[in-house]
Amino acid sequence: MKMSRMFMPTLREVPAEAVIASHRLLLRAGMIRKLGNGLFTYLPLGLRSFRKVETIIREEMDAAGALEFKPSVVVPGEIWRESGRWETMGAGMLRIKNRVDQELVVSPTAEEAFTAILRAEVSSYKQLPVAVYQINTKYRDEIRPRYGLMRAREFTMKDAYSFHTDDDSLDETYQAMGAAYRRIFARCGLSVIPVSADSGAMGGTGSEEFMVESEVGDNNLILCPSCGYAANDEKAACAPDPITDGPGSVPATAAVTPIKTPDVRTIDELCDFLKTTSKRFIKTLIYRAVNCELDLSGAPGCATLERIVPGNAAAWYPEAFFAVCIRGDLDVNEVKLAANLKASEVVLASDHDVERLTGAPVGFAGPVGLDALPVLADSSVSDMHDAVTGALAADLHYEHVEPGRDFTPWLTADVRTVVAGDKCPVCQAEFYSKKGNELGHIFKLGYKYTKSMNMLYLDENGKQQHPTMGCYGIGVDRTLASVIEEHHDDDGIIWPMSVAPFQVVIVPIKYEGAMQEAADRLYGELASSGIEVLLDDRSERPGVKFKDMDLIGIPVRIVVGDKNLPNVEVKLRREKDAALVPLDKAAAQVAGIVRSEISAEAGTAS
Amino acid sequence: MKMSRMFMPTLREVPAEAVIASHRLLLRAGMIRKLGNGLFTYLPLGLRSFRKVETIIREEMDAAGALEFKPSVVVPGEIWRESGRWETMGAGMLRIKNRVDQELVVSPTAEEAFTAILRAEVSSYKQLPVAVYQINTKYRDEIRPRYGLMRAREFTMKDAYSFHTDDDSLDETYQAMGAAYRRIFARCGLSVIPVSADSGAMGGTGSEEFMVESEVGDNNLILCPSCGYAANDEKAACAPDPITDGPGSVPATAAVTPIKTPDVRTIDELCDFLKTTSKRFIKTLIYRAVNCELDLSGAPGCATLERIVPGNAAAWYPEAFFAVCIRGDLDVNEVKLAANLKASEVVLASDHDVERLTGAPVGFAGPVGLDALPVLADSSVSDMHDAVTGALAADLHYEHVEPGRDFTPWLTADVRTVVAGDKCPVCQAEFYSKKGNELGHIFKLGYKYTKSMNMLYLDENGKQQHPTMGCYGIGVDRTLASVIEEHHDDDGIIWPMSVAPFQVVIVPIKYEGAMQEAADRLYGELASSGIEVLLDDRSERPGVKFKDMDLIGIPVRIVVGDKNLPNVEVKLRREKDAALVPLDKAAAQVAGIVRSEISAEAGTAS
Repeated sequence: MKMSRMFMPTLREVPAEAVIASHRLLLRAGMIRKLGNGLFTYLPLGLRSFRKVETIIREEMDAAGALEFKPSVVVPGEIWRESGRWETMGAGMLRIKNRVDQELVVSPTAEEAFTAILRAEVSSYKQLPVAVYQINTKYRDEIRPRYGLMRAREFTMKDAYSFHTDDDSLDETYQAMGAAYRRIFARCGLSVIPVSADSGAMGGTGSEEFMVESEVGDNNLILCPSCGYAANDEKAACAPDPITDGPGSVPATAAVTPIKTPDVRTIDELCDFLKTTSKRFIKTLIYRAVNCELDLSGAPGCATLERIVPGNAAAWYPEAFFAVCIRGDLDVNEVKLAANLKASEVVLASDHDVERLTGAPVGFAGPVGLDALPVLADSSVSDMHDAVTGALAADLHYEHVEPGRDFTPWLTADVRTVVAGDKCPVCQAEFYSKKGNELGHIFKLGYKYTKSMNMLYLDENGKQQHPTMGCYGIGVDRTLASVIEEHHDDDGIIWPMSVAPFQVVIVPIKYEGAMQEAADRLYGELASSGIEVLLDDRSERPGVKFKDMDLIGIPVRIVVGDKNLPNVEVKLRREKDAALVPLDKAAAQVAGIVRSEISAEAGTAS
Repeated sequence: MKMSRMFMPTLREVPAEAVIASHRLLLRAGMIRKLGNGLFTYLPLGLRSFRKVETIIREEMDAAGALEFKPSVVVPGEIWRESGRWETMGAGMLRIKNRVDQELVVSPTAEEAFTAILRAEVSSYKQLPVAVYQINTKYRDEIRPRYGLMRAREFTMKDAYSFHTDDDSLDETYQAMGAAYRRIFARCGLSVIPVSADSGAMGGTGSEEFMVESEVGDNNLILCPSCGYAANDEKAACAPDPITDGPGSVPATAAVTPIKTPDVRTIDELCDFLKTTSKRFIKTLIYRAVNCELDLSGAPGCATLERIVPGNAAAWYPEAFFAVCIRGDLDVNEVKLAANLKASEVVLASDHDVERLTGAPVGFAGPVGLDALPVLADSSVSDMHDAVTGALAADLHYEHVEPGRDFTPWLTADVRTVVAGDKCPVCQAEFYSKKGNELGHIFKLGYKYTKSMNMLYLDENGKQQHPTMGCYGIGVDRTLASVIEEHHDDDGIIWPMSVAPFQVVIVPIKYEGAMQEAADRLYGELASSGIEVLLDDRSERPGVKFKDMDLIGIPVRIVVGDKNLPNVEVKLRREKDAALVPLDKAAAQVAGIVRSEISAEAGTAS
């Protein structure tokens, strides 16, 4: 395409709102524009790269045997009521009542839609397994959309789902999807970190996230330099590190003893006061859990809690409180806590609730004698001895507390925030950490939706069964933005060949006379051999053209200048030096470069 | 693709809700499913055809020099407020307030978005003209969605817009789009009726609708058998047909005379009572106009009407009333009326309003002496003489009413419903009519959006100017459905090659032994020569397979049967007879058929 026919408004200035490289460069290269808060328009150049990412994803999904569907973007609220998520999805889901009072949702995700679609069609085990997908528009009402395409409100996702008669079949598709994801990201030129989302085990079989490193990533990745263990800190486990020596390493012989601690409010002050370390304390935090799906019917203080029991989905408590105990030097990871409580959200309880439930002001909670709410102990507490805790009264603590002897948690679970420096549970090496953004996620959903939405098939014995289900997502826009994050320099983008908006750009020093003739000839030869070529036919100064071309990052640049003719200058965007090539041979040579780069990218993918 | 890997749930039963062929066959062939009211899912087979229509449209838009953008589907309400359509779009537009109280719209159309996008980028006449488009998801909240894809709530449209410095440039793009539209529909195998939407003139230059005939079409097309005049009845004009002979053909000499008409309520009763014909009556209807943009400051009875005067858009009256006079045998076309009143909607006034404004019960309105509201006379009234009208009092009419002498309309306009039997304004031949559905529309918008949204560029003299604008839409789903409406028989769909989900299907009588071998060989040969081929490898009876293949309508069917081998049977879906072809030559011959049909379709398009 000739640039005079393209619409490519490049910017010299760095837009103030753009913090990260991909946002900055997508705006500067004239690839996207903001239409509203978290709402973007792809301009023609950006759309070309977007479509290439989309096509790579589609090819790999098709190759993995998944079938493409196209459900509507606006879907009936009814199916969200069926799954139970109408209540639990929170305010990020755009709900609408239309003029005839029907509830609608602008899809934030598509489990409900695909379960509803397949439910109506699948009746026999002979139709299973089946894998289906869409590449479609989604909306999530981010409160503070930012970082351009990385965290927008509207975005495009590939959502795949698979339905199976048994776990082996699910595992087969799950593995195939994992392999397809590795190929997709490799073909896009991306270094992804596949992160097990199973806690405690490497190479977990139920969930895998595909992360890219990013300074502004919203995930903390916990990484082992030795054995390759990689996990999101929302899931990461670590080796236990109890006190092995001296005080706190052996069970208390003394009974629990109250000790007055006037004017002591923080753990540090308490350490000073008692002349000990925070590893000796059992910190107790009161949490409020929203939409908890655990069965609390036998838990302390929960007998009269409101519980919602729908016909076909799991029952839940709209609000429940928990005392969470953890070793004093550690932090509670609220995502791990929410997962253990099967809650949609956990937040620290209000001061008022803390006083109501513990009978003491904030700062004096402890598990001994606490019976107004269930106690959840982090695994770190199980290893503690002779500990200090709050004593459920102002200015009072207990010493010589022995877990198991002086209190028994209602539940023990791993809710600790793992950080760099903690030890790998597999090989004991010291973790390091990185920030990352999630590009894709594959996940064994199991029966959650097929049960709540009552999807059934007849098995070989004519018996009705629920299929088990897997889900597999990739953010298309995020993937595109991540390519730029990984491939740019101070001058602009450096596209990998596979997702470049054009593969080659021809820049005549001036578009006139012999240079115009040579440029047109090259353009014709490249275009007719199927190369995507841009011709900079503008009457700008060469410096302006070169700057623009470095900014938009086309992989191969051919400069046609008077003084070099009948040779032209061929330069790769990622390299410093150019080569002089005879005009006669330039098209064939450049086409060869394009083809070999694309097959190299595809090659690393297989 | 092998059918065992496809998801293609065909139905024997005709779904009860499907009235028209395309809806019925899309459901039966397993191409679409309903997800909610007016909300559809494309299944894999349907999506293949959908994408082909999309690709044809994209190719022709690109060839016409339009550039593809991809704005978000959810857009800020702010831009709709700027254009003034936040107020005037009615309840069909889905408006949402998100959790941080921002107004959002699920796009029903894209004039606002594209004007906002281009406004920010275009600053100089050197950047004009520019033509841009999207192929994107839209939503309109139809109260009664029906006829499957023909009138759904969510749908996909191609929306193109062009921006120009002058009318000649706009006209050039408008003509290029008209030509592109003709190619698009021809390539899809569709017979469209291009309909001028300009009243009164053939080959109008401001607006053209592309219609397909449909029993359930929501447009009445007025067609001339002689000169080719074609218009939507919402715009159609006809030759005047005044009384030329006898009473009513000459001006009244007598003065207006009241006449008592007790117990006479209808025009028929009045005709009997006065022993005359309805052509002698001036029928007067009181209409309420919503959001009228005419300037009524000097109109009768309008001095105190509420008028909204925004900063940068046209001022409007939220509510205004008009007395509409028309010859007694004719009907008012409310779309033509609304267009003449520049109103978003017109409805008959309530009985209460009629009495308030005319001082008489319903049935006795008339233009003589009416001063509480403006009188709009249809052009037919200008030709009347010695007429009868209501006399603004119960049981009273006037005779000998002479337009011009006894009353002067505030406005005279063509608001008559033109019907079959009326005469062509160009050649006087008698019109016939058809029902039709609109697939596309090209339209010179002018300055409406560039002025209201204040889009400016600097002209050659450095002066700020608003560009003039054209808009060009095509419904993608509607186009697909219309292909089926035009191409089917009792057994199922008969796809044109260009938009068939697959081009060829191979049906082995049994998928085993020599038949399997031959089928696999053909499949390999066809696939490797780039033909889209489906292999029916199911273990169904041949009759079931044949019925399914007739239903889904693949253009070429190859049957591989034991008794014919080493020959196979090649049959076109649209023909009755099959030909025996040697297996050796079948692939090449069939590939030839596919290619020649596609180039023939493209050929009729150019």
